[in-house]
Amino acid sequence: MPKLRVHNLTMSLDGYVAGPGQSLDNPLGVDGERLHEWMFATRTARQLGGLDGGEKGLDDDFVARGEVGVGAGIMGRNMFGPIRGPWENEQWTGWWGDNPPYHFPVFVLTHHPRPPVTMEGGTTFHFVTDGINAALDRAVAAAGGQDVRLYGGAATVQQYLRAGLIDDLHLAIAPVLLGGGARLFDHLDGGPQGYDCAELVSSPAATHVRLVRAAQAP
Amino acid sequence: MPKLRVHNLTMSLDGYVAGPGQSLDNPLGVDGERLHEWMFATRTARQLGGLDGGEKGLDDDFVARGEVGVGAGIMGRNMFGPIRGPWENEQWTGWWGDNPPYHFPVFVLTHHPRPPVTMEGGTTFHFVTDGINAALDRAVAAAGGQDVRLYGGAATVQQYLRAGLIDDLHLAIAPVLLGGGARLFDHLDGGPQGYDCAELVSSPAATHVRLVRAAQAP
Repeated sequence: MPKLRVHNLTMSLDGYVAGPGQSLDNPLGVDGERLHEWMFATRTARQLGGLDGGEKGLDDDFVARGEVGVGAGIMGRNMFGPIRGPWENEQWTGWWGDNPPYHFPVFVLTHHPRPPVTMEGGTTFHFVTDGINAALDRAVAAAGGQDVRLYGGAATVQQYLRAGLIDDLHLAIAPVLLGGGARLFDHLDGGPQGYDCAELVSSPAATHVRLVRAAQAP
Repeated sequence: MPKLRVHNLTMSLDGYVAGPGQSLDNPLGVDGERLHEWMFATRTARQLGGLDGGEKGLDDDFVARGEVGVGAGIMGRNMFGPIRGPWENEQWTGWWGDNPPYHFPVFVLTHHPRPPVTMEGGTTFHFVTDGINAALDRAVAAAGGQDVRLYGGAATVQQYLRAGLIDDLHLAIAPVLLGGGARLFDHLDGGPQGYDCAELVSSPAATHVRLVRAAQAP
């Protein structure tokens, strides 16, 4: 069965995956880019961005895992862009330029319909207005037997966690304090239920945690 | 200058330092004792409890640091015991039996006055009704030039963090999810302000973080 996987989701020590005041200029909120310093220092992340150099090692290993065996993606509308409410026009095509780093179909959860947008390099953004299960079904069908990667943001991950639909979640904890923003472990109705911690390991730049769905009783 | 230090304060991945439903039977709330499994497996913690065995290594090193150079303690009233409101009688003398593992004066923050309680082995509980600064002043005076250790719980640590009075905070992150309880990073008015992460390291059982007051500009 294809899995729904989260990679590189990064939380501050005080529990935030984005800082306060998210905007066009600050897509991750004030100081939010500090969360991802560990990731942008890795060789894999730099290669994905068309850059040389970067470090190998534990952090890089985790980033590299996210690039293997994935055939489609899902993200929330607030991760796709800063526009809220109806699409005023259809100029906005994501934060990632003409050739986004996905290279497969990406399903964007939104309440506001919009035709698909085909980008260079194999990425097509599809806009899904009928909820997280419909988005997952479409993504699984599009992935052609490979896994589906769920990107974020916090509200989208929370919806899939509440529904118990995430199979494997790589959470990085960055050694920063943000003081506010979007909490990851919130709006979960006393959960997440049914997840175990399968890995706990640190580099000097980040702690890596892997949450997996607990084995079901036979 | 003597320091105010916190050691072994343990948070779940989802940010709780105690589970939901704290009570006499569950002083750390439902499932809360899972937070401290890493600690009770160490040689130092077992020795402090009068037990043989236990493991050396990273986790033990962190527990051992908390036993060095401390001359007095501070804790909140909810950590001292499960009784809320006025002391109905003075039978309750803490969770730790006749010979508590402190062996120095411990100042308990409370709104309800009570005479000091002298235990075996050098521990005396003093009840402080005039706030965190008064408790710190008294503890520093009692520590005779050594440091003061702040034990918890969450609300007490938050008060001292908001006031910027903690010099050194060892936070352990345990690979468990509690789903509810007492959050550590809450009620901090957008802070903690002025702290840096000075260490980040993991054993398989816990991630250890050290937060220190940021160096002041000269």
